[in-house]
Amino acid sequence: MSSPFVIVYGGSGALGSVAVRLFKQHMYQVINIDLSSNASADHSIAVPSSLQTLSEQSAFIADKVSVILNNRKVDAIVSVAGGWQGGNAASDDFIGSADKSIKQSVNTSLIAANLAARHLCPSGLLVLAGAAPALKGTPGMIGYGMAKAAVHHLVTSLAMPGSGVNGRVVGILPVTLDTEENRSAMPAADFSSWTPLTTVVEKIYMWLTSPAECESGKLYTITTENSLTKFE
Amino acid sequence: MSSPFVIVYGGSGALGSVAVRLFKQHMYQVINIDLSSNASADHSIAVPSSLQTLSEQSAFIADKVSVILNNRKVDAIVSVAGGWQGGNAASDDFIGSADKSIKQSVNTSLIAANLAARHLCPSGLLVLAGAAPALKGTPGMIGYGMAKAAVHHLVTSLAMPGSGVNGRVVGILPVTLDTEENRSAMPAADFSSWTPLTTVVEKIYMWLTSPAECESGKLYTITTENSLTKFE
Repeated sequence: MSSPFVIVYGGSGALGSVAVRLFKQHMYQVINIDLSSNASADHSIAVPSSLQTLSEQSAFIADKVSVILNNRKVDAIVSVAGGWQGGNAASDDFIGSADKSIKQSVNTSLIAANLAARHLCPSGLLVLAGAAPALKGTPGMIGYGMAKAAVHHLVTSLAMPGSGVNGRVVGILPVTLDTEENRSAMPAADFSSWTPLTTVVEKIYMWLTSPAECESGKLYTITTENSLTKFE
Repeated sequence: MSSPFVIVYGGSGALGSVAVRLFKQHMYQVINIDLSSNASADHSIAVPSSLQTLSEQSAFIADKVSVILNNRKVDAIVSVAGGWQGGNAASDDFIGSADKSIKQSVNTSLIAANLAARHLCPSGLLVLAGAAPALKGTPGMIGYGMAKAAVHHLVTSLAMPGSGVNGRVVGILPVTLDTEENRSAMPAADFSSWTPLTTVVEKIYMWLTSPAECESGKLYTITTENSLTKFE
């Protein structure tokens, strides 16, 4: 019997590479989808930057995944591709940054949903990346918040009967993740209020392996205080 | 003193053309933005179908609007461009229809928000088009519901301090509008539960001219029962 498969979308990024490492430790075959390869994954699908539209990217990725899986199913799809953009409607690059947020967060989540409809096993788990601040209005980061709100709605729809996805679907809604990039950008911040990447990934692994711990359709807000992290 | 300006985005469509007509009756100078011209408008900006990306469309429209306005302000921007797509994550054209919904609903709303930040007067009104069903999950029309949920979030953000938009911002969330297209598509439906286009447009005009009647940031659900329409 061969090892089960998982797909990590964004597996070359900060959170995604930690997910790749953890699933490898647990003997999964990991398919990474990102702009660049991750040598720790069993398979990396590097999406060429020449593919700019959602349809082109989706078709490219769907083909590669089908060839790798060869009719086998995946246990989990963890979509943590993304990026942050600030700015309000009066910002010079409002349209450009909103467009980037749609591409980074919405389009990747749609592609992950499409892969889930095709390849996720009925006991499997689809995880999409939202953001806790987008549960309210976000006047200082309008495009980003809007894109994450779209992802939240997608989680809700995908978890409902008739969505075309068999398996559980959840959203992870961090406030601030403790990444090297965030430490460089905000060196004076209180890191004990940031969420460690391993904490997020271990929770996802627990949801996958202990289904009763995970409520499908739920948007899990992730808050950290005094180095203690809550998912609720 | 010259007549005040309004912009109708989607002013060649079913709801938009009724809006153009009403604003003309009330002596406004109407700028229509759509894929085709509307001869009833004072100015029509026909967006060439060759402009496929958000950035290209936005730049094209922003230039034309700036030339027409020549530093004058607009009293209202009514964005009612859009379209409906069904389908779940297992549909053959899931990605294509989600992409179309983003372009039709999200991109047009972002462009309208950008125009509002540049040209709306502080007592003015920005109206964006959401959808009542998207207040919940929409497993049978996943991309459409997601796009409308993004528009709802955009309304919330734009109405908050620091959004870059001066003036009021509201969402209109119909269930089913009484259009010729809908009558053709659903000839056996109960038309007395559909909302007449003039009712929606007259309400928008009332919000514009009687600001106390309109709560900025609100997502107005529009329901019609026995030919009686409620905005709440």
